[in-house]
This record gives sequence, structure tokens and C-alpha cells, in this order.
Amino acid sequence: MRAYNFCAGPAALPTAVLEKAQQELLDWQGKGLSIMEMSHRSADYVAVAEKAEADLRKLMNIPENYKVLFLQGGASLQFSAIPLNLLGKNSKADYIHTGIWSEKALKEAKRYGDINVVEAGIKVDGKFAISEQSEWNLSDDAAYVHYADNETIGGLQFAGIPDVKAPLVCDYSSSILSAPLDVTKFGLIYAGAQKNIGPAGLTIVIIRDDLLDQAKPEIPSILKYGDQAKNGSMVNTPSTYAWYLSGLVPF
Amino acid sequence: MRAYNFCAGPAALPTAVLEKAQQELLDWQGKGLSIMEMSHRSADYVAVAEKAEADLRKLMNIPENYKVLFLQGGASLQFSAIPLNLLGKNSKADYIHTGIWSEKALKEAKRYGDINVVEAGIKVDGKFAISEQSEWNLSDDAAYVHYADNETIGGLQFAGIPDVKAPLVCDYSSSILSAPLDVTKFGLIYAGAQKNIGPAGLTIVIIRDDLLDQAKPEIPSILKYGDQAKNGSMVNTPSTYAWYLSGLVPF
Repeated sequence: MRAYNFCAGPAALPTAVLEKAQQELLDWQGKGLSIMEMSHRSADYVAVAEKAEADLRKLMNIPENYKVLFLQGGASLQFSAIPLNLLGKNSKADYIHTGIWSEKALKEAKRYGDINVVEAGIKVDGKFAISEQSEWNLSDDAAYVHYADNETIGGLQFAGIPDVKAPLVCDYSSSILSAPLDVTKFGLIYAGAQKNIGPAGLTIVIIRDDLLDQAKPEIPSILKYGDQAKNGSMVNTPSTYAWYLSGLVPF
Repeated sequence: MRAYNFCAGPAALPTAVLEKAQQELLDWQGKGLSIMEMSHRSADYVAVAEKAEADLRKLMNIPENYKVLFLQGGASLQFSAIPLNLLGKNSKADYIHTGIWSEKALKEAKRYGDINVVEAGIKVDGKFAISEQSEWNLSDDAAYVHYADNETIGGLQFAGIPDVKAPLVCDYSSSILSAPLDVTKFGLIYAGAQKNIGPAGLTIVIIRDDLLDQAKPEIPSILKYGDQAKNGSMVNTPSTYAWYLSGLVPF
């Protein structure tokens, strides 16, 4: 019997997806092997990977000028990868601070750039809230503005998408696919898969084309969005099974 | 029917492991959920993770003064993580060049330190071979000496373990667990799981204690071996299912 599972993440997966995974675990589509035993360079796996991307693009209405990357390391590796990828030409960024996750992101970003912290957590009638955007001390010349849509630990979620001049970068780990989202408002959206998409071990990055080539020289090569985009997220062996299962989940 | 699968990696897994994974996919040990739906912080999962480590320690006879880390990103992320972790106090390292994988590692390391390349690939009677260690131009003061035990593409494998003064660092992705290995000869051993250990999405790092705190300041925090060692490889959500299955494979 399946239990009611309210774990925040790694979170419950649809029973239908697990049943399909179970049925084909030793023999995927009559090929005589598990999909987790298959080369990521094989035509069969590449088709699976491409379908996962195409389906996510359709579901989220992701425009052609955005790349979708299927990476490893969790959102926490992106806390480093984002400034390392985006602060190579302009080292200034605004980070909106509303709780523990946005704080982790901004602490890491401070190691790589000139970070302006926007304190947006306030108390209204004794309750935690997010201040009005008109009260934020945003920079005029930031390379990007970062925020975390949903602060799971403090319980603060943005009611809408901030309207800023610089490209908007958002950690959507705990809210992606929970409601329609206008991707065109963002420069970059990222999310660990294990809350709303699939199993742990996969991280989705959706990035606008014009942001792909602003990396800082000290970036570990494998973290370069531009290289991953050119290589279908397969610069090296990806997390093949998590990618496959994530592709099954939303559809 | 299971096919004969000679794929180099992601490689074939033991049928018995896949059968166990299949049987328990929707309900792990009567808990009513898949192990991939379980929090990595739960007592059940932590016990699974610790058992995988304990079993690997026993199988490889890993001494107490070595940490075993279960990370993400593949050996290619370690090509960056190794120099970023080990060149903070002494920026010099020797890299033995015998083929494509050791070349990838040394190219990445050159971005972070003063790398002495030891050309050890030679031709003997028209065939590729590895030169005698007495002919290598090793440094007197390297922080470490790196090599790739088995060059899968060129087909060159070391017949033994080099005898060097500096800590030895080796990419064992395609040869780990294929033969007994004297771990005490090494400062660090690393291997992507997908060839000889388990499914893709997991990377094993075995590191001697005294090498844990030599990181360069620009290292992405999540890549710091010292932090991962202190946190049981769970600074953030690990690749839980690949870790679990890898724990089942060798035993």
C-alpha cells in the first residue's frame, strides 16, 4: 500500500510513473536492458532526453530563445554556477533577501561579485511578509536580479513576478510547475528536480540565449551554461535515470 | 529477455540488483513509498547511505583516515574540484599524460595552478605504451601527482601504482572494483559510478584526511571536500537513488 507522503523533497512521485518505471526496469521497450544501463549517446536515450525537453517546453511554453539544461549538483551548485556564469562582463548583481534559501544564494554570490543585498523581508501585523517593490534599493546597473520565489523554511512566497530592468534570475525549486509561469519575464529560472519535477539528482536551468556567454574565467568548465547548451547538456555523462523519470512525471 | 550489454557506461547492472529495485520500487521495506521519494535526512535513508559507505570501506579495505564522499557531477566535475580543493596551499601539481582522460584533467587543472605535464605515452614496437617511471620529469615540490589508471579510449592501463613522493590522485572511473587496490598508496581516488559501481549520477571520492583543507578561495562551496566530509556528503540533497543502487551493486 502506498503511504500518504508529504515529504518536502525528495518528494512523492506519481504512482503511475513508478508503475511504468517498475514494469520496464529490466527491459525498456523490448531492448533487453534498463534505461539506466543505456549509453547517454545512444539514439534511444537521446530521443528520451529530447522528448523530456520538448514536453517541458510545451508545458511551460518556453520560447525558442531560451535553452533548457538538465544538469547535476542541485540548486546549491547553481548558487555558485549562476554568478560564475553571469558576472564575467558586469560583476554587479542585486539579490533580494527573503529567507534562508535566498540568503544561501547571496552568500555564495558575494564570493564572486559585487552583490547588492535587497532586504525585502518585513513584518506586517506581526507576520512575515515581502516588502513592496517600490521600497527595494535596486541597482541601476546590475547584471541580474536574483530571488527565490518560495522560501520553504520561513514560508514566504512572492505573490507575483518582480518587474525589474535587469534580467531576472529565480530559484523555483519548490514552486516550478505548480502554476502557469510567464518564462519571458526571466533571464534564468532554475530548480532542483526533487520537489516538483522528479527524483533527486537532476537540476533544470532555463536560460535566455543572450546570457550564455558571460562566464567568469575561473568557472569550472563543466558548469559553463554555453558549453552545456551546445552539447545538449551532455558535456559529460548526465544523471540519465533522473532525467528520464523527470520526463515522465508532468505528462 | 536481458540482452548482452557491453556498453562502456552507463554500463550493465547486475540483474539481481535490478530485480530487487523493481520489486521494491513502489514500496521500500513496507514503508509505502519508493526509496527515491524518501528524504535524504530521514533515519531510513541515512542508514542506507551509511551502509553503502561501510560496505565500500570493507570491500576496498579503506582505512579510517580516509573519507568516502558520494557526490554529483561526474569525474569531469572532479577535474575542476581536485585542483580547486588541493592547490590552495601549494599551487604546483604533476599530471601524467597517457591519453584523452588524463588530458582533459590536466587541461582543466592548468586553469587553477602551475601544472607540470609528464608525457608518459610512448610507442614500443609500434604499439602505445606507458614509459618507465624513471623517465618521468616529476617535480620535487608538487602538491599532488595525478594520473588516470585506465585510458579507455586509447586503451592504455597502468600495470601498477606509481611510486611517488607527493600524494597520488587517480581517476579510477573505469577500473575501480575490478581488482584489489591498496588505497593507502593514494591521497585521493575518484570514480564516476556509471562504469563499475552503479547508475550514472553519482561520483565516489576517497580522500585522505590531511588533504581535506587545502581549498583555493574561489572554489564553489558545494565542491569543498572538507564540508562534504563533515556533512556525510549531504551539504545539499544528494543523488539519492543512484547512491542507493550503487550500494546494492558490489555486494
